[in-house]
Amino acid sequence: MDPFGILYTDLYQLTMGQVYFRLGLHEREALFEAFYRKNPDYGAHQAGYTIFAGLDPLLTWMEEARFGEEELAALSALKSRSGKPLFAEDYLRYLKGIGGFQGLTLRALPEGRVAHPQVPLISVEGPLLQAQLLETALLNRINYETLIATKASRVREAAGEALVLEFGLRRAPAKGGEAATRASLIGGANRSSAVSLSHLLGLPSSGTHAHSMVQAFLALGHSEEEAFQAFAEVFPDDTILLLDTVDTLDSGLPNAIRVFERLRRKGHKPVGVRIDSGDLAYLAIQVARELDKAGFPDTLIVLSGDLDELVIWQIKSQIQEEAPRYGVDPDRLLKRLVYGVGTRMVVSWGYPALGGVYKLVAIRENGTWAPAIKISDSLEKVLNPGHKKVYRVYDRRGLATADLLTAHDEEVRENQALCLRHPTDPTKRRTLRPGEFTLEPLLEEAYRGKRLFPPLPLEVLQERRRRDVERLDPGVRRLVNPHVYHVSLSERLFALKEELVARLGQG
Amino acid sequence: MDPFGILYTDLYQLTMGQVYFRLGLHEREALFEAFYRKNPDYGAHQAGYTIFAGLDPLLTWMEEARFGEEELAALSALKSRSGKPLFAEDYLRYLKGIGGFQGLTLRALPEGRVAHPQVPLISVEGPLLQAQLLETALLNRINYETLIATKASRVREAAGEALVLEFGLRRAPAKGGEAATRASLIGGANRSSAVSLSHLLGLPSSGTHAHSMVQAFLALGHSEEEAFQAFAEVFPDDTILLLDTVDTLDSGLPNAIRVFERLRRKGHKPVGVRIDSGDLAYLAIQVARELDKAGFPDTLIVLSGDLDELVIWQIKSQIQEEAPRYGVDPDRLLKRLVYGVGTRMVVSWGYPALGGVYKLVAIRENGTWAPAIKISDSLEKVLNPGHKKVYRVYDRRGLATADLLTAHDEEVRENQALCLRHPTDPTKRRTLRPGEFTLEPLLEEAYRGKRLFPPLPLEVLQERRRRDVERLDPGVRRLVNPHVYHVSLSERLFALKEELVARLGQG
Repeated sequence: MDPFGILYTDLYQLTMGQVYFRLGLHEREALFEAFYRKNPDYGAHQAGYTIFAGLDPLLTWMEEARFGEEELAALSALKSRSGKPLFAEDYLRYLKGIGGFQGLTLRALPEGRVAHPQVPLISVEGPLLQAQLLETALLNRINYETLIATKASRVREAAGEALVLEFGLRRAPAKGGEAATRASLIGGANRSSAVSLSHLLGLPSSGTHAHSMVQAFLALGHSEEEAFQAFAEVFPDDTILLLDTVDTLDSGLPNAIRVFERLRRKGHKPVGVRIDSGDLAYLAIQVARELDKAGFPDTLIVLSGDLDELVIWQIKSQIQEEAPRYGVDPDRLLKRLVYGVGTRMVVSWGYPALGGVYKLVAIRENGTWAPAIKISDSLEKVLNPGHKKVYRVYDRRGLATADLLTAHDEEVRENQALCLRHPTDPTKRRTLRPGEFTLEPLLEEAYRGKRLFPPLPLEVLQERRRRDVERLDPGVRRLVNPHVYHVSLSERLFALKEELVARLGQG
Repeated sequence: MDPFGILYTDLYQLTMGQVYFRLGLHEREALFEAFYRKNPDYGAHQAGYTIFAGLDPLLTWMEEARFGEEELAALSALKSRSGKPLFAEDYLRYLKGIGGFQGLTLRALPEGRVAHPQVPLISVEGPLLQAQLLETALLNRINYETLIATKASRVREAAGEALVLEFGLRRAPAKGGEAATRASLIGGANRSSAVSLSHLLGLPSSGTHAHSMVQAFLALGHSEEEAFQAFAEVFPDDTILLLDTVDTLDSGLPNAIRVFERLRRKGHKPVGVRIDSGDLAYLAIQVARELDKAGFPDTLIVLSGDLDELVIWQIKSQIQEEAPRYGVDPDRLLKRLVYGVGTRMVVSWGYPALGGVYKLVAIRENGTWAPAIKISDSLEKVLNPGHKKVYRVYDRRGLATADLLTAHDEEVRENQALCLRHPTDPTKRRTLRPGEFTLEPLLEEAYRGKRLFPPLPLEVLQERRRRDVERLDPGVRRLVNPHVYHVSLSERLFALKEELVARLGQG
């Protein structure tokens, strides 16, 4: 049985399904929404937004997932505590008959776009049983890829225009490395070292050599310079040498420069050096100075070793401050830096799980949508009920000023005043005057029995991210203490929520 | 192309391979070791040991991984900056010819056993190119599964004898959920909610219903009690009811008790209730009291919602303190608790990556093993060089007192005094007298061109963990501020390391 097929799910989706089936509720039209409640907080720093990722693999999975013979046999074998089968034969026949997720319609935020808490990322409409059954696979994919794309977007923001390489496969979560690489590239990494994954995404992979190559030469009685020379002879146009196996400044750098000089004499251009340990900013300055002196002013300097957005930010600040002391132009040095980012990007260091949820928000009853709600101890956790529409509101500068949730059958217009209600605090509201704002509907249909568009090239997703991040207020983009972006309800949706809370609170 | 085939690796493994191939070093016998440098530190608390996991999937992968046509085509398509192919045809032919990892021998800590920092988890011996090529896949699998098995072992320690269910698939890292579930079960979870994964591991999956089932009934104008009743009718011998959709004590609990009473009248035994939010300890006490009063003293109480080892510990402490006030026997209550643990286990909350490394430690030169070393800024990062043996040393109580690394050709005996040297501090040593200790060799051959044993049943791995954890000093087991377990070098290995550091430091 394929571990990642339709049974890559939690058992309760199937037990609930049998209850619905037995009661004849299994084909009742239902609406679920996937959203997350708060942006990643990495402890010392916080995200002001996320980058939505994971949609495309989900859509592909939905089209292919089926209750085949092996799946049905596995379900048949599950026993009740009574010893009888947990699942009845008629129910299993029904599951076999529905195939995959042909009854569902998904409206989703386009993958790669900026997302905010409480705003539906995906709405799923269709037969209750199928919609319920989708939960685990949907969250499994969306939660992780969105988490990693968000971290990568922050790394990209810290790195500015510099090249960012994703190096994380060795510390990625087993086969989750596939999603980690994809999400890193959507979020802002330029290349990955992962060979099969890059290939399947249509990109070349990146990489040169590890410490072990130098160690092997040393153990065999050769020198670091001989190791470098060997690499340069095999890859004369792709030589990036790792400087810190013995000592970066005393050994690696002078050896690399000698090898670079030989390459140059033979008409080749050395590509770069890499530093993987030590005070990276200080070492980069010293290495740049020596490379400049030796006549290699354009040779790249790749930095790696537990980098993340804050470490990159710190390195850049230190270079700005310290480089002039050594006669090195900091701006020119920053332009030749490349960041190799691994572990901390692929595990979202500091905040390793996005708590995305998938909630029933409405169910069709006699042709109208009855809103569903879960009363919770905390007002923040009360659902925004019912069938909804989602807009992004831009101000006159063209920057996003709020995401707006409205009732499904409500009209909001750019030529009318728009009242934005705080989702939980009844005293907070903001009114935008006509002409002061533009509205963009955010969700688009992605699946209707089958996926509605083919897998998109990575560049499309990267470009979506870039455009959306540029349209954020700088305060929302910043790496530390970002402004809280407004996610608002329309007057009508706010009233509906109040009414439902009151009704259930009494019930 | 299979994303998880032999190219589920970093490009530099293949570029280094081409250097070795070109220089005729590719079949030189080499020895690599995989180990990690420090135990997980979750911020507020720390691990005193880890549980080694991930070996079996690695061995299976090694047997199957091949350079097939698709893989070779992908490599052929990679270009040098010169525009020429990055990899030469003769090199690619060689890769095709070696098949998978038939030249390698792996000695490994048996999966499921307790592991410690700096101690080799796996040693890999064989042709330099093949051994190098294994790095990424090995670390990818071992790092993550060991991390999660360790977290699960801590959850198990906190939970004592109680049942622990793994619920994490919705927040697990995409397809990494497969490894997360496996590692959670090795580390101490009893069951998982993941259907396909449990099935493939030979276990039934666990689960009942979510809030959404109650919400669906409410939205359709029915009551919570009717939702519970429907579930109980479909699963009369497997009824576990989720109490907190509306209000745990005011609504969920009385509704559940009424449904339980009806089940009892029909001759069925209600299984339990689940509480997923709120003050879990307080609610568990109140729920237990009411269930007792209603004549359901054995009904399970499942707790869930962002649990981890510290939260479980806190819940148990609070119950010990608070239950008597409400006339509830805390010990009896603790015995009916079940813990549903999800997110925080499958992402190793607080410490999301084990920094396991894979280092060249020796290479064969003229029939003898030449030790390899990497000089580093920090003494802690200097490798323990050369071909080694690994022992666990037990004291007279039968508790593990140290792991010992010795030179490969060195004899240590139980009937001779044993000197344990601190791995980096030359002033620290400890001598054990004959009769005071026993020695257990830790690594066993797992792979020699092919795997040497079939995949082991989960229970074998769980039992290994249990036995090993029981043989730890209680100070090493504790959840907070654990004792540091000794990892020591023999006199001879310590001397070899000193000599090599001195030699390279001069070079």
